Amino acid sequence: MELTFAIEGTDPGTAARAGRIRTDHGEIETPIFMPVGTVGSVKAVTQQQLQSDVNAQIILGNTYHLYLRPGTGVLSKAGGLHRFNGWPRPILTDSGGYQVFSLAENRKITEEGVVFQSHIDGSRHLFSPEGVMDIQRAIGADIIMAFDECPPYPAEYRYVRQSMDLTHRWLDRCIARLADTPDAYGYTQNLFPIVQGGTFADLRKASSEYIASRGAAGNAIGGLSVGEPEEQMYEMCGLCCSFLPADKPRYLMGVGTPWNILESIALGVDMFDCVMPTRNGRNGMLFTTEGVINIRNKKWADDFSPVDPGLTDSPASAYSKAYLRHLFVAGEILGLTLASLQNLTFYLHLVREARVHILAGDFAAWKAAILPRIKQRL
Amino acid sequence: MELTFAIEGTDPGTAARAGRIRTDHGEIETPIFMPVGTVGSVKAVTQQQLQSDVNAQIILGNTYHLYLRPGTGVLSKAGGLHRFNGWPRPILTDSGGYQVFSLAENRKITEEGVVFQSHIDGSRHLFSPEGVMDIQRAIGADIIMAFDECPPYPAEYRYVRQSMDLTHRWLDRCIARLADTPDAYGYTQNLFPIVQGGTFADLRKASSEYIASRGAAGNAIGGLSVGEPEEQMYEMCGLCCSFLPADKPRYLMGVGTPWNILESIALGVDMFDCVMPTRNGRNGMLFTTEGVINIRNKKWADDFSPVDPGLTDSPASAYSKAYLRHLFVAGEILGLTLASLQNLTFYLHLVREARVHILAGDFAAWKAAILPRIKQRL
Repeated sequence: MELTFAIEGTDPGTAARAGRIRTDHGEIETPIFMPVGTVGSVKAVTQQQLQSDVNAQIILGNTYHLYLRPGTGVLSKAGGLHRFNGWPRPILTDSGGYQVFSLAENRKITEEGVVFQSHIDGSRHLFSPEGVMDIQRAIGADIIMAFDECPPYPAEYRYVRQSMDLTHRWLDRCIARLADTPDAYGYTQNLFPIVQGGTFADLRKASSEYIASRGAAGNAIGGLSVGEPEEQMYEMCGLCCSFLPADKPRYLMGVGTPWNILESIALGVDMFDCVMPTRNGRNGMLFTTEGVINIRNKKWADDFSPVDPGLTDSPASAYSKAYLRHLFVAGEILGLTLASLQNLTFYLHLVREARVHILAGDFAAWKAAILPRIKQRL
Repeated sequence: MELTFAIEGTDPGTAARAGRIRTDHGEIETPIFMPVGTVGSVKAVTQQQLQSDVNAQIILGNTYHLYLRPGTGVLSKAGGLHRFNGWPRPILTDSGGYQVFSLAENRKITEEGVVFQSHIDGSRHLFSPEGVMDIQRAIGADIIMAFDECPPYPAEYRYVRQSMDLTHRWLDRCIARLADTPDAYGYTQNLFPIVQGGTFADLRKASSEYIASRGAAGNAIGGLSVGEPEEQMYEMCGLCCSFLPADKPRYLMGVGTPWNILESIALGVDMFDCVMPTRNGRNGMLFTTEGVINIRNKKWADDFSPVDPGLTDSPASAYSKAYLRHLFVAGEILGLTLASLQNLTFYLHLVREARVHILAGDFAAWKAAILPRIKQRL
């Protein structure tokens, strides 16, 4: 069945909503954070830990990475990514556009698509809207993202407008391609289009209206958190939310810190993804209920309190700060795993708490109360 | 209470025994394999996975590594390694001797002990029998290994004899030091002396008799699997077993492959440790019930059968060979974790099965039947 979204509560003090997405691989309670499983694995974490410890309800896969390795041939033979990596819950794939611009070499954009060289072996490839739909079909994503161009920040108005128009034309080709091709593995694959428009309010409005007119099952806001000031990100995000349908989930791509997420929930966003909890975790940066920790710091060397005393269901809280610091200093792989688990568990805990407070009607007050604590550096 | 050992069954066709070691941190069913937790972590595996997935009953810590990082200061403040790393079951520590000879720089051996430079920062340290007992007390090991010299292979008879005599004198200093110092954390810490003597039968006999005369709670065979032919290893191992007390556990240090372990169990060995399952696992070498796999091999790219169909309780068997290969090819950390879990689960499975067959009295036939299968390269 097509993806559906039901709003179960709205916050009186903000634009925040609590909802429920239904997919053929199960339900997702929103607001939700989606761990990033780049190449078919959320780095350093098992799928079992993701389910039972982190309580992830949906994860991401990256089309660019999965297309290069293991490739759609293997994924098709496996019966899709769910069967390949053993993840039974929903999967969303990005369109590969962002990675092509940030990772690949010798990119050339034309109306047809983007020609690029693999960052792994230099081989040449074309990503077109049609091709990228076919790849995401083969991966078996429950939610397929439209192929878009994500302009850098800062960028000229003229460039951003042309890029946005191209993204809109590409969207229509994505829609046409999906209409012409069947779901790959017997469950519904749903397209989310992406709003672009950089930091220009009139373009963001125009793009949001164009995207809204397509009547998709859900809509995404792209091209933010790419270097613009935080205030500008919130302004653009709020603007997009005001023009995107209220009865469809809104997904803010690639954002962000825990406080970015809470502020964006207040603006009406329902879905988030970001590499920050895992990538920063692997660098020793921990997000906790008490604040942000650089676990490599000498001050933790003999601190035997749990990693996050306020989050006892985090697998990392079975260990002390001193032990986790030791693992990082000694270069032990277990440190990467525990830090990733802590951050992911915290992110999922945070959106779950946000949901509770939206439903209780006190989200704004709760957010104001916890932000200073979770933002502080310990 | 002091460590005890009860023999619960012997195999009619070999010298294999099934027993039970009791320590203040719980029981150990023998024969047993002990995963190596070098710096206080079995690499790439959580303590929870070690307990519930691998079913490890005892793990090792390396005195050399733990002394350098985090150091005995932190470990003492933590209340010992069990509390530092959250491992509630027994811990055995090696004496640091082997690592000093394989890792440290500018070693100089005297009657007093070994002066060496840290492989991490070049700092100078002395390991003496007394000092190493103090360190293992501070680590909080349930089983403390005597400080020994492990001669290389090949080595001259004269050198090996002098080295053995030194190891015996050091043993007596270890015993004296432990007699003079209390258990560190309220539970009994038990000394295991180590037989040396290289590949010389008369020295092995002399050393075994000397070690046996000390009446320790358990005894170890060191200096094997250091490059000598496999047949010679078995010959020396069998010789040592024949002179070491039958009513005390026998521990063959640093051995080895799954087939080395089965053959040595047949000679009367009860305890094993080796970095092979974790280290080789991280290099993509998998031990399975069906044989040995190089998971990087292209032949597994579209093999969607479980990693080890004969070991369904292995966490890795929730995934396919194709997926695990993909993780290795893509350089994903999860690959290291799953391969380590597979190999450790297999090793623990193997010794558990060995125990079952010793108790059933058909160990020799079982061993002969499975050896060709588990040794084959797939």
